[in-house]
Amino acid sequence: MTDSLESFYAHKRVLITGGLGFLGSNLAIRLVELGSKVTILDGLLEGLGGNWFNMEPIKDKVEVVVARLADREKVDPCVRGQEVIFNIAMQPSHVASMVNPLYDVENNVLSQIQFLESLRANNPEARVLYVGSRAQFGRVTIFPINEDTPPNPRDVYAVSKQAVEWYHFQYSNICGLQVTSLRLGNTYGPRHQMRHAEYGVQNYLIRLAMEEKEITVYGDGHQVRELLYVDDTVEAMLRLARHDGCIGEIYCIGALERVSFLELVQSIIQAAGSGSYRHAPWPKEREIIEVGDVRTDDSKLRGDTGWSPKIPLEKGLGLTVDFYRKHREHYW
Amino acid sequence: MTDSLESFYAHKRVLITGGLGFLGSNLAIRLVELGSKVTILDGLLEGLGGNWFNMEPIKDKVEVVVARLADREKVDPCVRGQEVIFNIAMQPSHVASMVNPLYDVENNVLSQIQFLESLRANNPEARVLYVGSRAQFGRVTIFPINEDTPPNPRDVYAVSKQAVEWYHFQYSNICGLQVTSLRLGNTYGPRHQMRHAEYGVQNYLIRLAMEEKEITVYGDGHQVRELLYVDDTVEAMLRLARHDGCIGEIYCIGALERVSFLELVQSIIQAAGSGSYRHAPWPKEREIIEVGDVRTDDSKLRGDTGWSPKIPLEKGLGLTVDFYRKHREHYW
Repeated sequence: MTDSLESFYAHKRVLITGGLGFLGSNLAIRLVELGSKVTILDGLLEGLGGNWFNMEPIKDKVEVVVARLADREKVDPCVRGQEVIFNIAMQPSHVASMVNPLYDVENNVLSQIQFLESLRANNPEARVLYVGSRAQFGRVTIFPINEDTPPNPRDVYAVSKQAVEWYHFQYSNICGLQVTSLRLGNTYGPRHQMRHAEYGVQNYLIRLAMEEKEITVYGDGHQVRELLYVDDTVEAMLRLARHDGCIGEIYCIGALERVSFLELVQSIIQAAGSGSYRHAPWPKEREIIEVGDVRTDDSKLRGDTGWSPKIPLEKGLGLTVDFYRKHREHYW
Repeated sequence: MTDSLESFYAHKRVLITGGLGFLGSNLAIRLVELGSKVTILDGLLEGLGGNWFNMEPIKDKVEVVVARLADREKVDPCVRGQEVIFNIAMQPSHVASMVNPLYDVENNVLSQIQFLESLRANNPEARVLYVGSRAQFGRVTIFPINEDTPPNPRDVYAVSKQAVEWYHFQYSNICGLQVTSLRLGNTYGPRHQMRHAEYGVQNYLIRLAMEEKEITVYGDGHQVRELLYVDDTVEAMLRLARHDGCIGEIYCIGALERVSFLELVQSIIQAAGSGSYRHAPWPKEREIIEVGDVRTDDSKLRGDTGWSPKIPLEKGLGLTVDFYRKHREHYW
């Protein structure tokens, strides 16, 4: 299947929104390897993951446009002629979305509608992979989670992500946009923002351990987690945007292994060779948005694209610690 | 239960958003009867149902503020001190939302978030009845529809209504807002806009029949519909906002009778004493957003509030025709 990815993506014009961030930059690096002509659109919003150093391996090989999705003057020329669009840009903080819902709705909903309007005007039948969130399912009581699990968002961010996924599919009716949605879970690896724990907390825990700090485990830490190394996530995204059978479809994604949050913390400490942890009661603002256990059935993704995760947690954490050890000054 | 409504609403400070429109004005008239101190907030948006004549019976008994929900300077003073808020303001056109999604999202999502922010700042624990839409369920395959039916919106308007319902409940966590949502179906009666068929089409059909025109029935017209006379809808809204047990809950609402769309058209023609109909194939833009049959189980609403619909279709259509015959010049 890698061959078929290469033949598909070689010389393809690909746009990545949020391309200076964690997922976007790792995807861009892989796409450049595959021979795509990559354009990156990133608003470099304060506090989010956009980081010029993420472009280091491909800095002369991609075009980068710094603009918000809502900036039609800059966005319109970017979307024209693109054959595949990975729409990743987002304000990804659950906590921030509850502190400032208006900011979340402006950046995660209104900006996205303006981006969709740009596509409608300039590239109405583009192939778009929308990156949603497992948070759209909220706290689930019937496992495993799959594509039929009803959305039940538990924070403003998750509501926005669900709404924008639906809006994307509406644009299929409005103008013929060819949309696939991937509801991502927890991804970790190189090129994540490491300055705060507001989102992608699994990544921040790696920093804490590397700095020999104490990690707080809320409650008993027995909630089940699925962690994907970013290369596995990128592979899934590439396959979903490649297969025509995925158009109009929603996909969930799981992981190679399931671990408890406590086991994750212990693995991180082991990979870092430093750090410690202690238990503490749940703070109210986190308890409200905590989704509980996660167990995903991603057989639809595997069946439709041939994808399967390859990187065990231990290996992925090792690669991640190595990366940040080498490039720490660019991330914290 | 009417007694208990009177004792609850007498002297209550009540705010109605969209209060110059169809639902809002009928609700306001009833609240004035019950002795409430009513404030109306209405943006009088072009093409929507806001109509000064709707205030005729209560024009000296309510305060009316013309402002969009997003206009914090005007909205903030309106929301302060209100004991019950009926949040009805919306851009209700399915078709318009697909033609201009940005307009829909600005008016149905962003404005609502700004309104919620106003509540958070000025009246964070207010009792709010959010008026959602049965369209949030979209095309349903398992009947009857009830509160557990997963949302599956089929147009931009319906996505926005679902998102804003969820945002309302998020504000319960954010600031303590006491929210109930009522997912309304088709309501008809006096004080609807009658100038176009962009929304509330069951009302426009009454105009067509009264004008001796031909009504178009798309397809066979066998799709099942539930029609509520506006007084029955108003009664449900009043009861939902009155009962503490309804806080945090979502409610569906059905009707006294179910009819096919074709039977509805025939009843309208009979009530008007004029008009005719013909069948035609579905136009694409309507077929996309058509939700198919509607059969609602509203036993939760009936059980929790004691509500039941009272006005048979024949009687309601008669009252409606009488109203528009008398006041035609204010509605078309």
